[in-house]
This record gives sequence, C-alpha cells and structure tokens, in this order.
Amino acid sequence: MALTLDSKNLETYIADSKKAFEANLKKLVDIPSVSMLPENKADIRKLADTTKALLTEFGARAEIYETKGNPVITAEFHSDKSHPTVLIYNHMDVQPADPEEWLSPPFDMKVDGDKYLGRGTTDDKGPALTALYAARFARENKLPINIKIVWELEEEIGSTNFFQFLEEHGDVVATDSVVVSDTVWISRDKPALPLGFRGLQCVLIKLRTGEIDTHSGLTGGGARNPYTELVDFLARCVDGRTGLVKVPGFYDGVEEPGPEELNGFIEAGFTAENFARAHKLKSLRFEDDKKVAAHIWSKPTFEIHGISGGYTAAGVKTIIPCKAEAKVSMRLVPGQDPEKLMDNLTAYVKEHIPDAEVEAVGQLKAYLGSREGKYLDAACQAVEEAFGKKPALVREGGSIGAVIALAEILKRPIVFMGLSLPEHGYHSVNENFDWGQAEGGMKAFVRYFELLSEL
Amino acid sequence: MALTLDSKNLETYIADSKKAFEANLKKLVDIPSVSMLPENKADIRKLADTTKALLTEFGARAEIYETKGNPVITAEFHSDKSHPTVLIYNHMDVQPADPEEWLSPPFDMKVDGDKYLGRGTTDDKGPALTALYAARFARENKLPINIKIVWELEEEIGSTNFFQFLEEHGDVVATDSVVVSDTVWISRDKPALPLGFRGLQCVLIKLRTGEIDTHSGLTGGGARNPYTELVDFLARCVDGRTGLVKVPGFYDGVEEPGPEELNGFIEAGFTAENFARAHKLKSLRFEDDKKVAAHIWSKPTFEIHGISGGYTAAGVKTIIPCKAEAKVSMRLVPGQDPEKLMDNLTAYVKEHIPDAEVEAVGQLKAYLGSREGKYLDAACQAVEEAFGKKPALVREGGSIGAVIALAEILKRPIVFMGLSLPEHGYHSVNENFDWGQAEGGMKAFVRYFELLSEL
Repeated sequence: MALTLDSKNLETYIADSKKAFEANLKKLVDIPSVSMLPENKADIRKLADTTKALLTEFGARAEIYETKGNPVITAEFHSDKSHPTVLIYNHMDVQPADPEEWLSPPFDMKVDGDKYLGRGTTDDKGPALTALYAARFARENKLPINIKIVWELEEEIGSTNFFQFLEEHGDVVATDSVVVSDTVWISRDKPALPLGFRGLQCVLIKLRTGEIDTHSGLTGGGARNPYTELVDFLARCVDGRTGLVKVPGFYDGVEEPGPEELNGFIEAGFTAENFARAHKLKSLRFEDDKKVAAHIWSKPTFEIHGISGGYTAAGVKTIIPCKAEAKVSMRLVPGQDPEKLMDNLTAYVKEHIPDAEVEAVGQLKAYLGSREGKYLDAACQAVEEAFGKKPALVREGGSIGAVIALAEILKRPIVFMGLSLPEHGYHSVNENFDWGQAEGGMKAFVRYFELLSEL
Repeated sequence: MALTLDSKNLETYIADSKKAFEANLKKLVDIPSVSMLPENKADIRKLADTTKALLTEFGARAEIYETKGNPVITAEFHSDKSHPTVLIYNHMDVQPADPEEWLSPPFDMKVDGDKYLGRGTTDDKGPALTALYAARFARENKLPINIKIVWELEEEIGSTNFFQFLEEHGDVVATDSVVVSDTVWISRDKPALPLGFRGLQCVLIKLRTGEIDTHSGLTGGGARNPYTELVDFLARCVDGRTGLVKVPGFYDGVEEPGPEELNGFIEAGFTAENFARAHKLKSLRFEDDKKVAAHIWSKPTFEIHGISGGYTAAGVKTIIPCKAEAKVSMRLVPGQDPEKLMDNLTAYVKEHIPDAEVEAVGQLKAYLGSREGKYLDAACQAVEEAFGKKPALVREGGSIGAVIALAEILKRPIVFMGLSLPEHGYHSVNENFDWGQAEGGMKAFVRYFELLSEL
C-alpha cells in the first residue's frame, strides 16, 4: 500500500466502518428496487428517498431529480472550485429475483461471515456504497478534489431517461472525468478495467392467433400455433448450437478486435475453463480460450431469453396457445447500427409471419474507449496499490446504457473501476458481494481520488 | 319426444331436478380435482369421497377402488341379472386453471342464468352428473336394465392406471356395452357421435447447460443457451406455419380417411368458419373446410405447448438460462405406432443435441370404432329424439385414454354420447356447461337406456 494519505488512518476508518457498511447495504438491498416491474414503482421511490437521506447523513449535499421515468439521485462532497472534480456513477435499480429459486430471500439481505447475500449486493448497491465510503473519507481528510455522485434508477432497463437528465442538469454533473463502478473482474485474483462494452437491443416478437388457449385435441392441426410459429422463426434467426446469427445484414459493419487486443484478453489470464467454472456452466459453445473471449466481449449475439404464452408449469398441458411472445436480445459491437438492425429484423419477421408484431424495448449502443490516458493510468495504479494486483485491460460483454449517455453528453474521460467478481452472480440467483471487495474497493477509490487530485 | 316412458313424468323429474343439479354440480366443480398437479392430491381424494356419498344418496351401490395412482369410483343401479347391462364412463379429474385468466374463480362454480361457469363443468363433471340423473330416473321408473357407472380420476393425465383397474375388477364393470360421455358436438345445432379418436404422445425434451441462469452480458456468446438450442431443434421437428412434421418416420403407417368419410365430415355441417368462430381463432392453418376437418380429426400433429426455463414475465430479462424444457405433444392417428415414434424422436433429439434428455409422459393409442351397429343406432335415435336433431358421425381430434382400455379389456361395443359444445371451452379459460345440454342430455340418456332395455 503506497497511499500518501495516512494509511493507518484509512485502515482504521475502513475497519471501523464494517458494521455500519453492512447495515447500510442491508437498508438498500432490502428495498426491491426492480426497475423492470411496474409493481415495484413505490420501492423505486422509497429507495430514492432512502439514498438521499443516506447521502445527506454522510455529509454530502444530495438531491433527487425527476425524469419522465425513475428519479436520479445526485450528491456532492464539495472541496473548492479550483480543485478538480470527479463524478462517480452507480445505479440503484436491480434485476428481478424469484424468491423460490434463491437460497435466502433476495430482498432480505443476509450477512454470512464476510459475504452479503441479496439482489443488488454486487450489482450495483455494494460498489456504490463502497465508493461512497471512500468519498466521505476523502472529504473528511480534506483531499483537494470535488467528488460528485450520480445514482441512477433505470440502468437495468436501458437508462432510457438518463440522457435527458444529463442534458437538463449539465451543471449538476459538470466534471473533469467520470468513474463508473459497475463491472466485473476476470477472477478474484485478476482485477480488470474494461475499455469497451457491447451494446444491447432487446426485442419482443408477439403473435396472437386466437382469443383463448384451446384444447389441442379439438383444434390441433387446424388452429395456428403461435408458439410453434415463433419457434420456427427464431430458428431462422440463430443457429442454436454456435449462436451464429442468420438475420440478414446482422454482421454489417462489425469491427472485429485486432490480434493484439485478442491476445491481451488471454494474457490477462482469461481461460475458457475458469470462465465456465465461475459462471457454473457445464459446457460452452467453443473450447478455445481466445474464441470464447472474443465471443463474450467483442462479437455480437442473438439470444432467446424465453417465450411467454403456452404452458410452462409441471407436466404437459395439451393446449394450442392463443398467443406467444418471444423475448430476445442482441448484444451489439462497435460498427453495428441498432436502428438498421431493427429494420432488418422487423422486415425478416414480416417476411415469415406477416401478422406478428415487433417491439424494440431498450436500445444501447456499443462503447469502446481509448487504451491510453492519464485517468486510465491513475485507475490502474489505484487498483494495483489497493489490491496488490495489476489490473488487465479488457472489454465487457455487457452493456451500461448510462455510459453512452455520459460519453456523448459530458464528453469527458470515463474509467471503469468495477469491484464485482464472476462468482458474485450478476443477474443470477443468490447474488452476493463481499467485504474483501468492499475493503479493497474503498482503498482503491481513496487512492484514485488522491491521484486525480494530483493530476 | 317419442319416449315410451311417461314423458310428462320425465319432464317433471327434470324440471324438479334443476336446483339440485346445480347444487350438486357446484359441489363437484368446487373441488379442484386437477390430476396433473401434485398439490391437488388431497382434492382428488376429497372428490372420490364426495362422489361416493353422492352416488349412494342417489340410490346406487357405490365403491371406491384404489389403484397405483388415483382411485376409481364405481356405482350400480341394479335391476335384475336377466336384464341387459350398460356401463357409463365419465371422468372426474380436470385440467389445471389459472384463476388470473378467468372471469370468475375456476373452482367456485358460478350459476349465470342457465350457464354454469367453472373448471370441469363441461369436461366432464356436468355430463357425468347428467347421466347420473338419467340413471336414477331409469331405476326409479323400473326400466329393465342394469346401469353401471365408472368415474375415473386420471383421464386428463392419460388414464395410466385405468387399464389395471379394469383388468383387476372385471366383475365390477362387466357389461353388454359402454357409453362414454366426454365429447363435443359440432355446434349447438349439430349433435355429433364420434367414432374415432386421435391418440396422444406427450414428450418433455430437457436440456441443462449450467447450474444457474447467467447474465447474457457476461456469458452471452460463450455460454450455450439451452432455450436457443431447443428452439433450433423444435424447428427441425415441425413447420411452424403448416404443422407439417419433419421428425423422420413420423408419417409411417398413417391410415388416411377415405373420401366418403371426409365428405361425411362436411355433410355433417363442419365448416372452417364455424370452427374458427367456436374456438375464437383469428385464423387457421388452412382455409378449405375439408382440409381443416381432416387435420383436426384424422391427421397427426406435433405441437409445442411451451418451453419452461428462461424468462417469461414482463419485459426482457437478459439472462442465458441454465436449463430449458420443451413441452410437446403429438396427436396420433390409426396406423401410427407410438413406441416406434418415440424411438425415432429420441434418436432425432440425440442426433442434434446429444446431451438433451427425452421423457415420454403419457401415451394413448388412436381409436377407431365401427360405423355400424345396434348400439350406435340406438344412441343416434336417442339423441335425435331428445334434441330434435339428427347427430352426425364424425371423429374427434382428442384422445380419451380410458377408451383404449375399455375397448381392449372389456371388448364390448362403445358409443360416445357427448353433451359438450365448442363454446363450452374444453381445456380453456372460462369453461362452462349449460342447463339446455343437461336437460336434453337427461332425456337422451333415459331414452338410450330404454332402447337398450328393448334390444
């Protein structure tokens, strides 16, 4: 640890903060701020109020800004106009969670030793709270830097209204640089700073052929089966085994990563075996390390997440469904134009099922930042000093809609200092975070603020 | 009405029975005897006890017989050894019902004028109760016929244990002929006596590729997607638009109906337009009347009912599912060998997805009875006299597993005197039955018993 700050003071601060950190994380996790489900509207509001109170309690000047959708929470630990400013981005909304599939209730955070179990612990409430503890320490120790915080509540649904928020409140978020903490390491032993993200286009393809489900003994053979028709169409979109996309024009403009970048993925320690183990996958589409890395970080996908309608409970109910809705998403890479892609897909649907409806839900462009820059250097140094391990420069296969908005509107450098681990179960059951990552994360953020203050 | 019985007496009996019929039907419908769901096990037992009490109250000698699965209820209105015997078959188990989709609670029967709303009202509790009222009248009026009743509780799951019951209790069900009341008319104006039924083979195709669902941003492209793989495979099984089955060997041995029988379907008054209207279908696979009739009654199908796993709630959750299970059924026609068909399908699955599992759940052979015979003649006459309309001889596209068992073990003539209408919503939401069909049905059964007693 090479902090010029009083390291002992920081160690003490962190150790003394543990119980309160856990209590505060529980307070946040126990509010089911699922942005995807209309029934959690009141929880979103409750979370905004709770976080504003928390930020105020931490000594920041906090505010709630309304948008057409969910509110945005901002805060500032102000130092001095002449000092540099950094904006920390996290999000406070979470993915849905089915309690029946979890070992412990997803919205009643459980502390199991140094492990915190609950929806949102790692994505992204834990990292957000970690950065907040670091920011308070920086302020209390009078680091010459202004630290701003922005917490979004629509990240999991594509940050639809975040663009508008940034446009309307440029002064509130004005900054020299941005740090985003919402990404995943390669493994516990290998920190990663991602430079690029795939984009995302979610799509619903809907078909209704009757008013009610009917008995397949009575109507089967004569009635159209919307489920069977969608299945037939989806198989024309993607090769089930390899994932190769067959929608016309899908690969137009795709910019492939160079051999140097691909080799970098492997040199960073990525292996297909570790990847499969971390995500508990029995087998992968490919065996070759480089091929797997390329496919999760730098190649586009077309995935089917589910088809609603039909019968999906126990056994077989021999109905002909009256409607079906395919839930599909495409991960996009630099060079792909989401608008053109939607046009191509819609035309392809209409060609095969003229009375099907296509609805685009959420669209995020891919993002690719520079491999060089002083902010990136500072982040690398901070992480290495805090965790004792040099971070790898990689890409992430996921999408953070807010990043596109931040890049396009603020036009300031963005670095990605994530704290999550593959085994934390991003978007999965039994999501968790741990004190080790919180502790190291507080050190890394404090050190990063310090390095920025010296730039 | 040409009953030789005192018609006025029967009219009075029926009119006087209405309130009690409704109360008894409600008593049966309100017990959710869903044979498909393990959680309704206790309800199945409750229904057996309730029906035994009801049959006893009606003056029959009733009994409950245990099987490896659900019990079977029998009853007899004994007349004299020298008199002919008829066995009435109905079933008392029902399809599942999702209360959220229904206008009124499916297991809290509602009387709406002459309409009875609830799961099982038409399939098959209403027709069963109708036949029971007729049987009691026949006994009380000393018709020289022994009337036996058998009520099954596993019809909706393929009558798995009914075969064994019939084998073990041949004396209890010994009869000269069988009448089954579990079929649907062409329309309210066109009664139908079906001669044949399609068989059924239900199949689950399961694939697991990981331990937990993962985030498609993190794993998408590298992880196998079991949902996408099953979709790809299913599209190789069936043409979504036409329903043409592509599983190798599927059509081997299929016996097509002759032109005379096909013309008979149309002469019976079948039209694609009426069929679509009755089942609330927006469009059909074919427009031609004869083609639709052939496809629902005499051609085999491969239908996808749903795929579990994946995400099917609101919006799009961008997961890569760890498992998926396709729920498929094939309706079979005379000439198809279900065993060989399963072998072919299993080999086809293994060829495309070697680590997928195939599970056959429920298998019913197709059935085709004779177009001639004195029992059929009597049933035609009874229905025509009771309802004032000549019934058509058709086939049914559904499957009644018990019929195969009855035909193979009892080896006695079987006629199908159903009372349900297309608008009654067999296996659908808002299932219903009505007093008109109950009233006419009581007359038809009484007259049928009378004609049998004279044979």
